[in-house]
Amino acid sequence: MAVSYVHCVQPLRVSSKTRLFFSVGGRCREDRRKSNCLVFASAMNSDVSLNLQSKVEVLLDSVKWDDKGLAVAIAQNVDTGAILMQGFANRDALATTISSQKATFYSRSRSILWTKGETSKNFINVHDIFLDCDRDSIIYLGKPDGPTCHTGSETCYYTSIFDHLKDQEVEGNRLALTTLYSLESTISQRKEELAAPENGKPSWTQRLLLDDNLLCSKIREEADELCRTLEENEDKSRTASEMADVMYHAMVLLTLKNVKTEEVLEVLRQRFSKSGIEEKRSRKALN
Amino acid sequence: MAVSYVHCVQPLRVSSKTRLFFSVGGRCREDRRKSNCLVFASAMNSDVSLNLQSKVEVLLDSVKWDDKGLAVAIAQNVDTGAILMQGFANRDALATTISSQKATFYSRSRSILWTKGETSKNFINVHDIFLDCDRDSIIYLGKPDGPTCHTGSETCYYTSIFDHLKDQEVEGNRLALTTLYSLESTISQRKEELAAPENGKPSWTQRLLLDDNLLCSKIREEADELCRTLEENEDKSRTASEMADVMYHAMVLLTLKNVKTEEVLEVLRQRFSKSGIEEKRSRKALN
Repeated sequence: MAVSYVHCVQPLRVSSKTRLFFSVGGRCREDRRKSNCLVFASAMNSDVSLNLQSKVEVLLDSVKWDDKGLAVAIAQNVDTGAILMQGFANRDALATTISSQKATFYSRSRSILWTKGETSKNFINVHDIFLDCDRDSIIYLGKPDGPTCHTGSETCYYTSIFDHLKDQEVEGNRLALTTLYSLESTISQRKEELAAPENGKPSWTQRLLLDDNLLCSKIREEADELCRTLEENEDKSRTASEMADVMYHAMVLLTLKNVKTEEVLEVLRQRFSKSGIEEKRSRKALN
Repeated sequence: MAVSYVHCVQPLRVSSKTRLFFSVGGRCREDRRKSNCLVFASAMNSDVSLNLQSKVEVLLDSVKWDDKGLAVAIAQNVDTGAILMQGFANRDALATTISSQKATFYSRSRSILWTKGETSKNFINVHDIFLDCDRDSIIYLGKPDGPTCHTGSETCYYTSIFDHLKDQEVEGNRLALTTLYSLESTISQRKEELAAPENGKPSWTQRLLLDDNLLCSKIREEADELCRTLEENEDKSRTASEMADVMYHAMVLLTLKNVKTEEVLEVLRQRFSKSGIEEKRSRKALN
């Protein structure tokens, strides 16, 4: 049976008041594909459970599965936005992902469901699932437990076509990084180069990395300049520029402290999902 | 002819020294699919041009096209990481995207190539293209000229399955947002709520939005606390927490000034791609 290895009972917190439990594996109706479907069990309110089951069925029916019963499923890191991998989901794979909150796909080559991480333990913990406007493409927005790619790479996308077309071969692989993580990667590279300095003056980033006083004075200065764009009613482009300065210098400090931008974003997300940053700040301000 | 409407001659800057021009439409060989392929023209160096043409051919050959000659192509915002849309590319679509640097797909329903934006003018300007480890999935990493979805939405992914499964219907659509943009969205919402205040005390975010002095004193304070994690050798978790504070408060200021995080990231990216933030900083520091 395709879904037999799916972890059976995991909570899906669908509201702050009702805690429902799903399990996967029961055969609840004979549909065209003879597929398994979700069985819902709630110790609290069977009406709510039935309602939820019905909603999931309607939702699964609404997906525009292709002629092979598949839709594209893209796993994305909820904090960094990195596209981790792309596979395909059939009805069972999506149902399983909804219930288990572990990114699950349908393997076209092996004709079975597979949950990313079932072998490596590098699960992708799904926080939300999105359908596109045509309802034939799915995002699993989640947090990976470790590298997603079977090669050990953080994501499966590490082959740049434009690097390949450059005259000179690029050393090593380069992940598909968006701006913030590309900057982080560059700063880390400058830090590594300090261990084996080449001839010539150190770069500005390296000077900051080598001099805590200089770095901290720049961070305080840039934060002050950012504030002054509000206090002195400077234009928007000035605000964007000063905020860029704050972020760059603060990211040099993060690199020095071996803190990843992803860790900072995780802090922000956890504050939201626990009691909300506002509540926390509010409490802090009242004390 | 499938590619007749593709903009003909656009530069692909493959290195800082050599500027090559591609045009699309020439028939350079009779392959199994009778597809068109790239014709390269360079006024500077025909050897380099031929070499590049050969590299593109090898690269296109290396993609694992499926039984319909397609691979999944995902367009992603280079600054925010937002997944804008997902389509399919065939050999011609990928070749056209490489040459035009506009995200181009193969429409399965219409059996033609189409460049996103050819009607709406909301092109996706491709900065790099990545293949996954299996070479059957492609990321077009680029900057959209405007909303990508035909509905006018910023991205095509605005239907949350978990919202749908909640007991209460969610008002409006919610984009698939990663942590930073989810925070930005929440702060913007608090700002909008100020126009129609409900009963009860304003939230902490709203207090910051209403009081420039309070906001600026918090930004300076949090920047100082971030610096002190380095100066006083505090642990990594403290650094991540203080950086989260800096980012949250600075983002409230951005919201007040109607500056998007994406604009800040664009500034950072442009500094890199022009002369490098380091060079700019270095010049500033030397003056």
